[in-house]
Amino acid sequence: MKIIVKKFGGTSLSDIDRINRAISYIVKTKSAGYKVVIVVSAMGKETDRLLTLTDNLEEYRESDDLSALLSAGEQISSSIFSIMLHKQKVKGQSFQGWQVPILTNSGPNNAYIESIDTKQIIKSLKLGMTPIVSGFQGINKANRITTLGRGGSDTTAVALAAKLNAVRCDIYTDVDGVYTTDPNIDQNAKKIPKMSYEEMLEMASTGSKVLHTRSVELAMKNNLTLQVLSSLTKETGTFIVDEKELIEKEIVSGVSYSKNEAKVTISGILDKPGISAKIFSLMTENNINVDMIVQNISQDGISANITFTISQKDFDITKSVIEKNHNSLKYKSLSLDKNVAKISVIGMGMMSQAGVAEKMFKTLAKNEINILAISTSEIKISVLIEEKHTNIAVKSLHEAYNL
Amino acid sequence: MKIIVKKFGGTSLSDIDRINRAISYIVKTKSAGYKVVIVVSAMGKETDRLLTLTDNLEEYRESDDLSALLSAGEQISSSIFSIMLHKQKVKGQSFQGWQVPILTNSGPNNAYIESIDTKQIIKSLKLGMTPIVSGFQGINKANRITTLGRGGSDTTAVALAAKLNAVRCDIYTDVDGVYTTDPNIDQNAKKIPKMSYEEMLEMASTGSKVLHTRSVELAMKNNLTLQVLSSLTKETGTFIVDEKELIEKEIVSGVSYSKNEAKVTISGILDKPGISAKIFSLMTENNINVDMIVQNISQDGISANITFTISQKDFDITKSVIEKNHNSLKYKSLSLDKNVAKISVIGMGMMSQAGVAEKMFKTLAKNEINILAISTSEIKISVLIEEKHTNIAVKSLHEAYNL
Repeated sequence: MKIIVKKFGGTSLSDIDRINRAISYIVKTKSAGYKVVIVVSAMGKETDRLLTLTDNLEEYRESDDLSALLSAGEQISSSIFSIMLHKQKVKGQSFQGWQVPILTNSGPNNAYIESIDTKQIIKSLKLGMTPIVSGFQGINKANRITTLGRGGSDTTAVALAAKLNAVRCDIYTDVDGVYTTDPNIDQNAKKIPKMSYEEMLEMASTGSKVLHTRSVELAMKNNLTLQVLSSLTKETGTFIVDEKELIEKEIVSGVSYSKNEAKVTISGILDKPGISAKIFSLMTENNINVDMIVQNISQDGISANITFTISQKDFDITKSVIEKNHNSLKYKSLSLDKNVAKISVIGMGMMSQAGVAEKMFKTLAKNEINILAISTSEIKISVLIEEKHTNIAVKSLHEAYNL
Repeated sequence: MKIIVKKFGGTSLSDIDRINRAISYIVKTKSAGYKVVIVVSAMGKETDRLLTLTDNLEEYRESDDLSALLSAGEQISSSIFSIMLHKQKVKGQSFQGWQVPILTNSGPNNAYIESIDTKQIIKSLKLGMTPIVSGFQGINKANRITTLGRGGSDTTAVALAAKLNAVRCDIYTDVDGVYTTDPNIDQNAKKIPKMSYEEMLEMASTGSKVLHTRSVELAMKNNLTLQVLSSLTKETGTFIVDEKELIEKEIVSGVSYSKNEAKVTISGILDKPGISAKIFSLMTENNINVDMIVQNISQDGISANITFTISQKDFDITKSVIEKNHNSLKYKSLSLDKNVAKISVIGMGMMSQAGVAEKMFKTLAKNEINILAISTSEIKISVLIEEKHTNIAVKSLHEAYNL
């Protein structure tokens, strides 16, 4: 059986017309000889609507009742999709997480998939039916409903495609692919036809929100081809594949940015071994993710300054954790700044090519943009700059690398 | 364990305020020393909303996808109820049909409950939790979602209460009990404090839509006390109990009416044995339910007239079935009339008391209301009259029996 898994997000299912459009892609793929398994998110703003129905969610967030509530959104869209398929003479069969079943850890709200039993899905396909699986949901060993957290439906689709040995997993979303940079910032941005998992992962972690990191990692682990495409156009999207399949590797394939950063500077700490370990173990204990780190000796040669970046959502907790430990850290001053942005250039070809970093720093300098911190990986260089320079930095880098 | 099952209908759950009001009854019953199991319908107009989300339901009504779609309504209300219970320091636990499980026949849309496994519910109660069970839904042997059809949530509540040996099943609805007649027709209508299953069944089948027949039959079979009450007032409702528990039986406990009738008259048929059998087997073959039957010899002494009543929904099919069989039935004329109403007086005491029917006929005669047909059971007398006389018939009978 040659299977393609197709996943439709909320905007692709927001009304009857869009669902019919999604169905037209199913019909086309089936007539090309493939079996299709469909994975759906909740329709349009349904998840938001469900969250407004009670008034005490804040005090009771971690519960399997919340998972039961939210998973109703996908239950509605999968059953409606199946009902509407009948118009096109396709016999659908809706599957909730517990019906597959998709077994997760205990969860209940940010659960991980532990195993997928594909027997029922394969039986459905063999009977000539087209299964429509509710994304985002599963059950744990206690038979309680769980949900997979952010990007959960993408994860369901990729995990199912991997388990079914699918030819490919198509992710239909509201953009028609992955771009060399954000088209809202630079109108010269171009759609990337093909890229590697690693590049996509770096793109995702540096701010391009097309796919959730978790689903790309899962595809990479299983060497499953992904296609990101729009359900509103008929165009081919961006294929995400193993790097071996990329014949000519782009030195730089994209420029991404994130305004979701905050900079923390702790000044005047004693320049002694163990002091940074102390700071970062405090961060770990409080589940604060630290990204770039820069450490300097200050001019007096005795004390040091440490700068690092965190997510803006951790701003308040970081501030209070450091202040609470003033006595043990013995620093002179603490400053936090939300007006920063991270700019990254990403490309598989970078590994074998010198001068990529140099070009980046020169381009920024020519535009009089100060670099506050730098971090690099084999296929990515990121710099922290003042937020107000974001647009000009992205545009000038996009041009400098001929994207 | 002394358990009370409380079932809340859609109007009792239509917004956060009403859910909080429902929760106050749970808290009160719990502090009186009972364990409570809750059964919920979908919130307010949710079921109607779900049915508008697709445009081809008509052509695909009989499907488990439709059951999956509709059951999402109860999944939402049970999980929200559980989440909101936490405000009152009550630890809730929501159960969908498949989690209990409530096993039904294959269904998928008008399924019957075959068995309920109460292990999980009892476990939940023993752990100090309050289970909230989604009404109206179950699963069949193929692990597909089924729904119970009209009045389904009442059936879930009564079946569960019976299986749990509950002290009582409280059905919260939008009226505060069963009345001696419809208060919209006669403002002297009074709430009945206590009545028998048989009386409630006759009331239900003759037009009082407070409880679905199926749930009353199930309660009767299991000798389970029901209480019908409103979630909007704090008043005691109507208790429905075994007739043995009624110390003084009312001769007539209520007057009900139904405008949902149609009269069929077939004139000039041959007065020969077997001719009525032929007519009514035609009706049975076509799933047409026949209620009252009157047969007269016509004046010529050779031919006969047959009059009977059907539901208005069967009007068209009845007409076409009889017309199609004109040759074999050999009748002179056929007339159908929707402008009729059935008026019933109901009471357990009727069995041992003469003169009830006489009083009914006299009262109607005094008001110059012609009786078109009569049918009786041990605890009920029904008459068919012209629809325009409905209000005056109900009012005068309500007064005649001192209700």
